Amino acid sequence: MLAAPGRAALVRARAQSSHLVSAHQTVTSSVSIASRHLATEAAATTSSSGRKKGPTAVLLMNMGGPSTSTKEEVGDFLSRLFHDRELIQLPFQSRLAPLIARRRTPKIVDQYDKIGGGSPILRWTNTQGKAMTDLLDQLHPETAPHKHYVAFRYARPLTEEALDQMAEDGVTRAVGFTQYPQYSCSTTGSNLNELYREIQRRKARGAPEGDIQWSLIDRWPTHPLLIEAFTNRVKAALDEYPEEIRAKVPIMFSAHSLPMQIVSDRGDPYPAEVAATVHGVMDKLGWSNPYRVTWQSQVGPAAWLGPQTSDTVKGWAKQGHKDAVVVPIAFTSDHIETLFELDQELHEEAEEHGLRLKRAESLNDEPTFIRAMAEAVTSHLSALEGTGRKIEGDKPGASVWNQGYTSKQMLLRCPGCVNPVCQEQKSFFGRVSP
Amino acid sequence: MLAAPGRAALVRARAQSSHLVSAHQTVTSSVSIASRHLATEAAATTSSSGRKKGPTAVLLMNMGGPSTSTKEEVGDFLSRLFHDRELIQLPFQSRLAPLIARRRTPKIVDQYDKIGGGSPILRWTNTQGKAMTDLLDQLHPETAPHKHYVAFRYARPLTEEALDQMAEDGVTRAVGFTQYPQYSCSTTGSNLNELYREIQRRKARGAPEGDIQWSLIDRWPTHPLLIEAFTNRVKAALDEYPEEIRAKVPIMFSAHSLPMQIVSDRGDPYPAEVAATVHGVMDKLGWSNPYRVTWQSQVGPAAWLGPQTSDTVKGWAKQGHKDAVVVPIAFTSDHIETLFELDQELHEEAEEHGLRLKRAESLNDEPTFIRAMAEAVTSHLSALEGTGRKIEGDKPGASVWNQGYTSKQMLLRCPGCVNPVCQEQKSFFGRVSP
Repeated sequence: MLAAPGRAALVRARAQSSHLVSAHQTVTSSVSIASRHLATEAAATTSSSGRKKGPTAVLLMNMGGPSTSTKEEVGDFLSRLFHDRELIQLPFQSRLAPLIARRRTPKIVDQYDKIGGGSPILRWTNTQGKAMTDLLDQLHPETAPHKHYVAFRYARPLTEEALDQMAEDGVTRAVGFTQYPQYSCSTTGSNLNELYREIQRRKARGAPEGDIQWSLIDRWPTHPLLIEAFTNRVKAALDEYPEEIRAKVPIMFSAHSLPMQIVSDRGDPYPAEVAATVHGVMDKLGWSNPYRVTWQSQVGPAAWLGPQTSDTVKGWAKQGHKDAVVVPIAFTSDHIETLFELDQELHEEAEEHGLRLKRAESLNDEPTFIRAMAEAVTSHLSALEGTGRKIEGDKPGASVWNQGYTSKQMLLRCPGCVNPVCQEQKSFFGRVSP
Repeated sequence: MLAAPGRAALVRARAQSSHLVSAHQTVTSSVSIASRHLATEAAATTSSSGRKKGPTAVLLMNMGGPSTSTKEEVGDFLSRLFHDRELIQLPFQSRLAPLIARRRTPKIVDQYDKIGGGSPILRWTNTQGKAMTDLLDQLHPETAPHKHYVAFRYARPLTEEALDQMAEDGVTRAVGFTQYPQYSCSTTGSNLNELYREIQRRKARGAPEGDIQWSLIDRWPTHPLLIEAFTNRVKAALDEYPEEIRAKVPIMFSAHSLPMQIVSDRGDPYPAEVAATVHGVMDKLGWSNPYRVTWQSQVGPAAWLGPQTSDTVKGWAKQGHKDAVVVPIAFTSDHIETLFELDQELHEEAEEHGLRLKRAESLNDEPTFIRAMAEAVTSHLSALEGTGRKIEGDKPGASVWNQGYTSKQMLLRCPGCVNPVCQEQKSFFGRVSP
């Protein structure tokens, strides 16, 4: 399905998006007002050929969520989700997906109501994107001005809307920057396949945005500043405990689970990358506490990767633990999985079993996280453009976010991959022969 | 079962063990002959109380393997393995285990025949232990002399034999040092539960070795020198390829798999620690190649963690890959899983599918690996004894191998743990109230 929204819908979406951008909270950063003005002016200049010179685009990719809890918006979100064969494979999917979406809509509307009437993920993404590009203009002026765009897989703004906006702005160079720190074929992979298909459609009809030069930050599970940002959040949670029990509180690093079919049959790299992030954070914490990697949001009867976050709460409670910290480790913004699943469902469950739960805050506008985003893109662009190193210790080609058009890891399909689009997409973005 | 071997068997085992120690290959290290003599002399001195002053023991724990391929030794090995309820839980286990062991013996005898008539794991462990303690005497003279002991879970020398030897040597202080870099309840955990039970038996009968002061290095998945040693082995394998294809060869980091019951239902930390080791090696390699973490040695009909190493070979071959490197990442010595499963079975399978396979050499006597062992113990001992830091950057309490009697992580049971011995064992080694 994924029907293209009509012109009116697009206009609505853009109006909403710019509203959200202008409403964003200013993030603590060292960006000067002067440089921001400079960037904006540069964005508006036209090249000698008379065509508007577009900014360097940074496309922030994520799953997204409905910005309101209306039945229509939640229903559309769920329908797109259940149609995505890169996420779920159902028999008679094109018929079954809308049915499942419709059946689940009231329950999910209720959940979005309970977190304030919609997902804050677009608001956070715009806040992060604006703060990141402000900093990026300073860190890598060679490619300034930079402008962020948002491509959600299941909610507005969709990939096609982002590309429309990029076309309108005259973008010729873009960095696709996944906001999932750890790569899964069902998350970043699905976004990239969608982006690839959308680019091919534009190429086919000769649209200029079909010729945008792309490169990708396709994963960044252990970017030093990302690790530092997570660590700051965990430390803040731990600091709330009296000193005498602080080091004994177990930590759950909770990531969205995956069906075992994706993990074991296909060989998705996600669980290993989640573990790498967790290891990085624990190392930064000086191994201050005992911990486990746990997995949340399992649905349906099939086998998923565990231990489940909720089972972990119950298990630890049964063993006599009275306290635990839960850290959302695979998303960078608040969304339904943190605000509803962890803060409401899991909290209640823990209370019932006599366990007091604290949640580490999501990264959201954490200043070190904004620097992580800006430095990852700077490192990526410097490596590709051959510009000087501005970040201490940065070595081109030595990290997964600065290896070239994509990471080397990105070019390797899962051993059990059954999706030919993955190969085409990898060849396209990696600029290698299929 | 785990029947105590008779006196004659013990004498045979010790004779064999010392034969193997004396036959060990000298490992490149900076150890001087003088200091080695000093250590040996010190080991032989007696304290003022007249009792022989024992060396500081380092007990190297591993699963082990039959040193010969005789039906008797292989049968005993398998019988112990299938009796271990910390590894496998079978209905009517005490009856079923010997039956399964007997049925599987001929096939496994054949496999040990094919790798030269037995497992080299005892020989390697003694080589490593001797070289490690030589270095350790230099690095941490405060606790010298050091002597290594071997406790295998399923093969000779068993835990009880190691304790007998330690009693004979007058040991009063011992470090239990797992030779599985990544912790699993079914590997290190099983060894520790066995050690705990054996200590309790000795305590009960008032034997002096019941009072040995223990501390543990219960995991060391990302010790910097361990990572460096693995990286050296991977680099050597990659260097065999012509430069033009070298960076494109995919790497499989192959670890022993686990049943999903242990991973998802219990919440075993092993998969996350394996991923951490792999991430460390890839980082050290500068992300030179694409890779996957894969899992080998699955048996039986239940679900195990994947992707399986052999499926990965087939999948990549199907996708057109012509080359791949396989790296044993969860064992530190050669044994049946490397010499037979990877070098023979997997190689044949790969060839059949048109994939040329190279295997990174096992760590065995890799000099950096020996240093890793010695530095891990030095760091552990310095932290506990409050002696000066001799290793650059070493911070007591900041790594899982120098946090005290055990790592903090060690004290946390799996959320789905169903084994009360785990709690007792953790309390005992951690010296905390249960």
